[in-house]
Amino acid sequence: MDDTKDLKDSKKLISDIQAQYPRFSKGQKLIAQYILSNYDKVAFMTACKLGDTVGVSESTVVRFANALGYSGYPKLQAALQELIKNKLTTVQRVEMAKEYSDDYTILNKVLKSDMDNIKTTLEEIDHKAFEDSANRLLKARKIYILGMRSSFTIAQYLGFYLDIILDNVHIIRMDMGDAFEQIVRIDENDVIIAISFPRYSKKSYQIVNYAKEKGAHIISLTDSLFAPVASLADNTLLVKSNMASFVDSLVPALSIVNALIVAVGMKEKDDIKEYFDDLETIWDRYSVYE
Amino acid sequence: MDDTKDLKDSKKLISDIQAQYPRFSKGQKLIAQYILSNYDKVAFMTACKLGDTVGVSESTVVRFANALGYSGYPKLQAALQELIKNKLTTVQRVEMAKEYSDDYTILNKVLKSDMDNIKTTLEEIDHKAFEDSANRLLKARKIYILGMRSSFTIAQYLGFYLDIILDNVHIIRMDMGDAFEQIVRIDENDVIIAISFPRYSKKSYQIVNYAKEKGAHIISLTDSLFAPVASLADNTLLVKSNMASFVDSLVPALSIVNALIVAVGMKEKDDIKEYFDDLETIWDRYSVYE
Amino acid sequence: MDDTKDLKDSKKLISDIQAQYPRFSKGQKLIAQYILSNYDKVAFMTACKLGDTVGVSESTVVRFANALGYSGYPKLQAALQELIKNKLTTVQRVEMAKEYSDDYTILNKVLKSDMDNIKTTLEEIDHKAFEDSANRLLKARKIYILGMRSSFTIAQYLGFYLDIILDNVHIIRMDMGDAFEQIVRIDENDVIIAISFPRYSKKSYQIVNYAKEKGAHIISLTDSLFAPVASLADNTLLVKSNMASFVDSLVPALSIVNALIVAVGMKEKDDIKEYFDDLETIWDRYSVYE
Amino acid sequence: MDDTKDLKDSKKLISDIQAQYPRFSKGQKLIAQYILSNYDKVAFMTACKLGDTVGVSESTVVRFANALGYSGYPKLQAALQELIKNKLTTVQRVEMAKEYSDDYTILNKVLKSDMDNIKTTLEEIDHKAFEDSANRLLKARKIYILGMRSSFTIAQYLGFYLDIILDNVHIIRMDMGDAFEQIVRIDENDVIIAISFPRYSKKSYQIVNYAKEKGAHIISLTDSLFAPVASLADNTLLVKSNMASFVDSLVPALSIVNALIVAVGMKEKDDIKEYFDDLETIWDRYSVYE
Repeated sequence: MDDTKDLKDSKKLISDIQAQYPRFSKGQKLIAQYILSNYDKVAFMTACKLGDTVGVSESTVVRFANALGYSGYPKLQAALQELIKNKLTTVQRVEMAKEYSDDYTILNKVLKSDMDNIKTTLEEIDHKAFEDSANRLLKARKIYILGMRSSFTIAQYLGFYLDIILDNVHIIRMDMGDAFEQIVRIDENDVIIAISFPRYSKKSYQIVNYAKEKGAHIISLTDSLFAPVASLADNTLLVKSNMASFVDSLVPALSIVNALIVAVGMKEKDDIKEYFDDLETIWDRYSVYE
Repeated sequence: MDDTKDLKDSKKLISDIQAQYPRFSKGQKLIAQYILSNYDKVAFMTACKLGDTVGVSESTVVRFANALGYSGYPKLQAALQELIKNKLTTVQRVEMAKEYSDDYTILNKVLKSDMDNIKTTLEEIDHKAFEDSANRLLKARKIYILGMRSSFTIAQYLGFYLDIILDNVHIIRMDMGDAFEQIVRIDENDVIIAISFPRYSKKSYQIVNYAKEKGAHIISLTDSLFAPVASLADNTLLVKSNMASFVDSLVPALSIVNALIVAVGMKEKDDIKEYFDDLETIWDRYSVYE
Repeated sequence: MDDTKDLKDSKKLISDIQAQYPRFSKGQKLIAQYILSNYDKVAFMTACKLGDTVGVSESTVVRFANALGYSGYPKLQAALQELIKNKLTTVQRVEMAKEYSDDYTILNKVLKSDMDNIKTTLEEIDHKAFEDSANRLLKARKIYILGMRSSFTIAQYLGFYLDIILDNVHIIRMDMGDAFEQIVRIDENDVIIAISFPRYSKKSYQIVNYAKEKGAHIISLTDSLFAPVASLADNTLLVKSNMASFVDSLVPALSIVNALIVAVGMKEKDDIKEYFDDLETIWDRYSVYE
Repeated sequence: MDDTKDLKDSKKLISDIQAQYPRFSKGQKLIAQYILSNYDKVAFMTACKLGDTVGVSESTVVRFANALGYSGYPKLQAALQELIKNKLTTVQRVEMAKEYSDDYTILNKVLKSDMDNIKTTLEEIDHKAFEDSANRLLKARKIYILGMRSSFTIAQYLGFYLDIILDNVHIIRMDMGDAFEQIVRIDENDVIIAISFPRYSKKSYQIVNYAKEKGAHIISLTDSLFAPVASLADNTLLVKSNMASFVDSLVPALSIVNALIVAVGMKEKDDIKEYFDDLETIWDRYSVYE
């Protein structure tokens, strides 16, 4: 038994579970499977609650922790909590996807996982934060939208539609110009929406931090209250992020963004009808569409 | 009764139904509600089948068609089929969204509708087309990805990850350079993925048509077999597109794209592990992430 | 002699001159060389003026036209005028560059040609149009900037700096969203700057035409008063465009854009000082620069 | 006299000269004017050479240094050398532009300064480096192009044309994806072109440094041999950068890029003729241009 096994090893926890899986007892296998799919929940469950959920005794849970080299369940739990903060490296996520054997299984798993993610997101989202976000967007002098790496696609989509409705949106683009140059004039009349998913970039945090200092209203769309931008936000829209593979699932984030666009759009309905009326006329004239 | 009411009026059909709704009989109201939510299915149902589905008699269905000014059910059905081809204008879609009264209802409806869309997509997708697409992508000399307007976000996301895995991806960007300049060298060793949702742009059709003439393999990701690019495609990945509001739901398209990325990634697993291993090392060195 | 040689053949004129060059008389060679470098000027010169400029007699000029198969100098002139409208195809421009034999010669010719282009631009630019453009930009509610293909780089550069100074700039981006969607709200309080160089795109014309109908102030940055967007513009900033090779030289356009940015910036000097003061502070804090 | 005045104060040097200007002697004013326009040259001149150039005695030069608070000319020279490394802050550059009083003067000054910059660039560029760059680009497996902030426009322009000619170009885009993700596979068969102008970004240095470690051939396009990327480069293309105002003049950089595109294009002439032949056919068919 190794009492010194510390938090730095938390990243190895998942691969340790996978490696020892064949040697686990039937009860331990149930625990292992549950943890692999739900380690973010288990991180905050007592040994008793975990046993109940999986259908094994509390002492089986404790022996499971011991089998993994922890002096007790609290150490395992601490490792899981650490894991959530750091998230898995992308390499580990590729490893975890090895169960995906054929194209049909992948198709099935990914789409079902995305449905589940939306379902959980809907169950857990803070309605007040959503409503407040929609109202703040309507009243903002200027709206800044920030998203890096794959989150940039969500930022771009949200910015595209919000600008149609509100005509005062600035998508922060890293290609041309430093981000600070783009937000240096932000103030307390403005709103910034920060879309940030693991691996959380330092740059996003710095930008949102600057916006906060200037008094802007901060809306974060992220997957965890532990996300750096969430710690700065006035409203946080939490979405369940799929960890099934090396690719981040932004599906539930896109669905929330759809809802936000519709919510804001419904409040500006007459304006957008007129907007689209004009547009249909131009499109017809220049035969843009089939 | 107006026997001459022709297909050009199909776009008015939805608003006619909404306008006359208060004067419909109870049975007609059931038909009206069903059509508003499922007109793409009704377009291919017999009067008898529609009556069965809704729970009214076939003659109620026929009288419903008459009440709308059609000489018979086949005329109504033809109008519905035309409607699918043309889709609704954005203005009509804003109109249809009027039931969305408050933020909570919107959040609930949009997320549920996205879940349903993924579910239907999973039920109806052609597994063979999906598998063939994944294999074609692996063997391609070069992969071109095309998406315009909001579909560009999906194109960009797919291109970002496929290029990580395969290192031979060209996202067609309209900002710099005409699209033809970017695909003029396409040939039979290449694959083009065309992401196209209503309103279908003429430009997308022209580009895919050129690619087809040059012998490239065409994969279309779209919402209907009637979509212009689908008529040119070797493989079509059909996704259910939400029509709940003025915003296109690209959620099921993004979910399919996730599945495609994972399917291709799993076939190149060792390569991407090495790729991410290298990346983690650099990220650590320059403290890119929190 | 071929009296029927018509305007459709204008595109062949340059290659005809090149093909017959070895057989020309000494005087004809002087005319040929002058036309190849300055056909846009020759298009509006009389035979007498062209003779004077080159240092040959008017009758040598007429014989030159005959040698090329035209019934007289006016037919040659008409062909040159037509040529300006159509500009050369890119293929012809690659042909014309065959004199570029080695890297050193290319470097020398391209840089000298760019210097000459700036010189001519400075001599010929309409000061009033420049001054009026700077003042209009200052007063605009919103500034739209349009440039397609390689002109997009100039549009992006101009937009980047003008937005730093004025904070109300929208660069029209074709990657995401149709251009019409981006300008549908344009009105008489707004300014659109259209950067358009040969081959002039139809789309640019359509967009500027719509802006004109809505009453916006139009500034065109182009190479010819025959450019489609120039015909719609309130102010035209003409730059000399290099035709030395298959690549458009946007160097003089970029230089004019520099001047425009400085002119607008000087009028908002206190604002931009404060802007950059704030920025230096942030940059220092986050060590963005070396 | 202040012997401790150190390099940290170099940034104040320019404003000190401006502030004391009215109190300078006639000879000191000549030195001051020369330094303000040519401080990059003065940084490497002896007191004797500077006196000769300006037309004053060496002792006048020494007294000038004293008047500014330096214990001797070498201290002033060291401050100037430091200044080149750090360049001026943007705020100082706005200050320096105060002589620009009206639009016409600005137009004149900016265009003339751009012509001078191209002239100096042509005189001073390393022909061997230019030739070697063109040849390396032709032989590269893959070409990466890096430019941040306003340099991104030059990168995009260069990438657009090189990809037309060579079909193996990757423009590093910061909007989507971290830069490291885009170059992690770079190796000794590849070339990276880094376009970097003051303020030199740390990120650019890190990216080029990684490319160097992987053995890639490095071409830097920059304004000084002191630029961080120049210290890593195999070939450096030096361009004279205008410091006339708060806006970086990228005009000479664009001119060099033109020359590079033509040089590479001429070596692949048959290919690009075929390319443009195909393109003209498509453009005609779809009426893309006027």
